[in-house]
Amino acid sequence: MAILLPVNQAAAFITQYGVREFMRDFSEQLKDDFSRWDSFDKSPRHATHYSHGVIELMPISDHEYYSFKYVNGHPYNPKEKKLTVGAFGVFSEVVSGYPLLISEMTLLTAIRTAVTSAVASQYLMRKNARTMALIGCGSQAEFQALAHAYLCHIQTIRYFDIDPEAMKKFSNNLKDCEIELIPCDSIQSAIQEADIITTVTADKNRATILKDSWIQPGVHINGVGGDCPGKTELDAHLLTHSKIVVEYLEQSTIEGEIQHLSSGAVYAELWELISGLKPGRESNDEITLFDSVGFALEDFSILKFLYELALKNKLGEKVELIPELENPKDLFCLLRL
Amino acid sequence: MAILLPVNQAAAFITQYGVREFMRDFSEQLKDDFSRWDSFDKSPRHATHYSHGVIELMPISDHEYYSFKYVNGHPYNPKEKKLTVGAFGVFSEVVSGYPLLISEMTLLTAIRTAVTSAVASQYLMRKNARTMALIGCGSQAEFQALAHAYLCHIQTIRYFDIDPEAMKKFSNNLKDCEIELIPCDSIQSAIQEADIITTVTADKNRATILKDSWIQPGVHINGVGGDCPGKTELDAHLLTHSKIVVEYLEQSTIEGEIQHLSSGAVYAELWELISGLKPGRESNDEITLFDSVGFALEDFSILKFLYELALKNKLGEKVELIPELENPKDLFCLLRL
Repeated sequence: MAILLPVNQAAAFITQYGVREFMRDFSEQLKDDFSRWDSFDKSPRHATHYSHGVIELMPISDHEYYSFKYVNGHPYNPKEKKLTVGAFGVFSEVVSGYPLLISEMTLLTAIRTAVTSAVASQYLMRKNARTMALIGCGSQAEFQALAHAYLCHIQTIRYFDIDPEAMKKFSNNLKDCEIELIPCDSIQSAIQEADIITTVTADKNRATILKDSWIQPGVHINGVGGDCPGKTELDAHLLTHSKIVVEYLEQSTIEGEIQHLSSGAVYAELWELISGLKPGRESNDEITLFDSVGFALEDFSILKFLYELALKNKLGEKVELIPELENPKDLFCLLRL
Repeated sequence: MAILLPVNQAAAFITQYGVREFMRDFSEQLKDDFSRWDSFDKSPRHATHYSHGVIELMPISDHEYYSFKYVNGHPYNPKEKKLTVGAFGVFSEVVSGYPLLISEMTLLTAIRTAVTSAVASQYLMRKNARTMALIGCGSQAEFQALAHAYLCHIQTIRYFDIDPEAMKKFSNNLKDCEIELIPCDSIQSAIQEADIITTVTADKNRATILKDSWIQPGVHINGVGGDCPGKTELDAHLLTHSKIVVEYLEQSTIEGEIQHLSSGAVYAELWELISGLKPGRESNDEITLFDSVGFALEDFSILKFLYELALKNKLGEKVELIPELENPKDLFCLLRL
């Protein structure tokens, strides 16, 4: 029997575990998994594009476990009281091919995306970075803020969204945490004096959230919102003098900010920084960019992390999605003529 | 909320509906969907191969619905009391990208595979066909027998398996149906006087279940067991003088019996017969071959069929795999700091 973990049970468990502790412990799992990059069977995700959105399958496997995530990206969903990004995932054992865990992954995706950005920031921000600008206050915003506070010692967040309600929601959700929150009335105002700029917008168009001329030397940028062919956030000129790090070149070339550049424009894949094969930031003047689109290994990593916790803490419900038969060749015994 | 349909509930419903009626009504849905081939966004399945098996994701979509199936193929699983092929699937609405149904698909795969074979037989067998040879009495066997009895008027099944226990299981499961069952002691004996030969073996190797010299003019062959690179069942010479029909050329070229042939050796894709674009059998002497590997459209079709029945009959359990939020931008509200 597989474990089924619906939204309410995953949320309750993470709250009980502590968001800070969950992000911290998961970040160690994530780094461990990225360090063994070559042990994974990787491929770009399978995306089905529609005029109004996308549905993706993101599989990956090592010799022991297989995982995939199902995730949609529908920027107009909020008008119908639905999420722009909803997801669930499956974690399986390779030995039998059977699923072990079916879990909600909307929350998990928000957490793994934010933690991956914060891990990239650890390698790419200036050592004394304390202020982050956050452009976009949608579903991802609080997670990015907290991951950077918990994992990168960010103390101040300057935030902006074209939707004032989203800004209120953001500050209200974080009012009890120890981050200084500064609402700003424009992108240009938000990025002033920021050591890190994190963009998490959702429009499915080629947009220019950040102009080249606005960016000061020494800034680290997490470009998180651009993740589809035709969906980008950054000024193309900005890319040409940034040190660019991606998750998985083969996929980012299709989907990332770099989709209009040659692959030679990319400095490194994130695992190369985590493994110590390439240095991250090398001077206080560099502009660095983590061009994040989200990669299946991040999902694998958080599903593995959660599966082990689910076993230990007896989380979720058992569900028979694959028949358990006395004689495995006798599938027909389930039916009566 | 999505509908979750575990094995026991799917099996109970199909039994209550009637296996004959379920196969018959589903075959109409399948033909309808194959008839509108061009309205689907198709791709070969995503396969992760291991030395002992394979895990596959099979997505497909039209403008209204999206589906995918997760399926493993592990021929040594029965030694551990597990199934060679286990599967589950998801049926989603394109408008929001949200899943509507998560269902067991081990049973559904057995049914859709057998019904697809029987539909191919309708176009490719001789009109007066009454006898089928069944090579392999594993999980698929009873389903193939019944689909051909119900949809193709097959009255006699000559069957063989290298495992005598599997043969006993097969005849025992079908003892109350109106098919004449003739156990045979070899493949050569089973195929004598057979109008249709259906091969459903599971070895993950290049095997030669049927030799060219054994095959009489006028026979229709359903090659169902060969479905992986390196996993084939038929004599290569047999292919060269058969009229070959596949499901989806782009995928079958990778996985089917035709994996060592040029694509020009293939006569048609199944949808072309169903749509009337190409004739099926054209003479009583032709040897015809349906080189079946299983295609995502078959899964889409049975998931759609079942989803509509699930709504009508209030089947399954509701499960919150995607959060339902008052404010869809406020994902963080699920957590407490």
